[in-house]
Amino acid sequence: MTRIAVLGAGRVASVLAPALAGAGHPVVLGIRNAAPEWLTEPLTHASVPEAVHAAGIVINATPGETSLDRLSTLRTELAGKILIDVTNATVRARDGMPGGLAYPNSSLGQKLQQALPETRVVKTLNTMLFPVMANPGLLTIPATVFVSGDDAQAKQATQNLLTDLGWRSEAILDLGGIETARGPEAMILLVPDLLKARGFSPFALTIA
Amino acid sequence: MTRIAVLGAGRVASVLAPALAGAGHPVVLGIRNAAPEWLTEPLTHASVPEAVHAAGIVINATPGETSLDRLSTLRTELAGKILIDVTNATVRARDGMPGGLAYPNSSLGQKLQQALPETRVVKTLNTMLFPVMANPGLLTIPATVFVSGDDAQAKQATQNLLTDLGWRSEAILDLGGIETARGPEAMILLVPDLLKARGFSPFALTIA
Repeated sequence: MTRIAVLGAGRVASVLAPALAGAGHPVVLGIRNAAPEWLTEPLTHASVPEAVHAAGIVINATPGETSLDRLSTLRTELAGKILIDVTNATVRARDGMPGGLAYPNSSLGQKLQQALPETRVVKTLNTMLFPVMANPGLLTIPATVFVSGDDAQAKQATQNLLTDLGWRSEAILDLGGIETARGPEAMILLVPDLLKARGFSPFALTIA
Repeated sequence: MTRIAVLGAGRVASVLAPALAGAGHPVVLGIRNAAPEWLTEPLTHASVPEAVHAAGIVINATPGETSLDRLSTLRTELAGKILIDVTNATVRARDGMPGGLAYPNSSLGQKLQQALPETRVVKTLNTMLFPVMANPGLLTIPATVFVSGDDAQAKQATQNLLTDLGWRSEAILDLGGIETARGPEAMILLVPDLLKARGFSPFALTIA
């Protein structure tokens, strides 16, 4: 089992870290402030650089709009590692909802790969409400989970983790290189309208 | 039955015009050049301004990247009508595939509504491969068809046509005003990568 660092202490981290620990992985939470209430054994926590240093696979669950700045400062620590980015980078609208893409016609995934050339960046899990990430069975229609990345081995490691989170192999759609992250990332534009139209019920963008 | 003008003579028009005629609607194709081979009775054709003039509902199936210019010149003819836009406006990449959004963080639907204030613009059907538009049963997973528009009556008329095309009411998702078209339109960014990853098989973007 590879040691996994989950960066962040928000809702996404609170779903992924316990689920991956439950699948048997040693998981360390990389956080800047006090440990969140939901952090219990066997989960551990450390500073962000320490957590990255200790891990082979790093999952970015920090707010997407701050991720490029934050992770760029960790270029040395992240060298040689797999970075799985599950976030969306948006400009906030006045109501606090996603108002526009931070990197229109590009993507946070691609920007991270450019900023971290010694790191193998994989984009996945960013096209669904957070409870679905570790519980695809919540949905009545079989959902799709997209994977984008330049490195085949890193994508295979990511797919193994997706399997651990409950995703069936038929649900996993490898789109190609990291430049293909822009399609799934653009789907964040749908989210505020979906939540208004359907309420706060779990969803995932899916290819029928 | 309202007379419907379908603007265009390409693949999308070749799917929608016969299907709507088959459902009993009088359909006139608005074209600039010679009638396409597939145009047979009861379909008729006319110049674009004549077709628009004769119709209560106009469906835009011209190439999305040219639609704003083309339709802006028809502001007088389109006044008071329902305009259903089913296209995507992209900047072409060197391989001829969609390379980027023509209106990032906005949408063609919204641009059309701004350019045609006396017309009721509805965006729909732009999130799937063209054969699916009039044959949602092609897909094994129940697909979603999104609807965006400012005018409730125009959206109801659009939903009635979607029903005629074979869409079940549970599949139709009214996202809200025309500004919500940007989410579904952004999904065109996925299309070239989907076609490369899965081949040229029918698909539709769906909300699970």
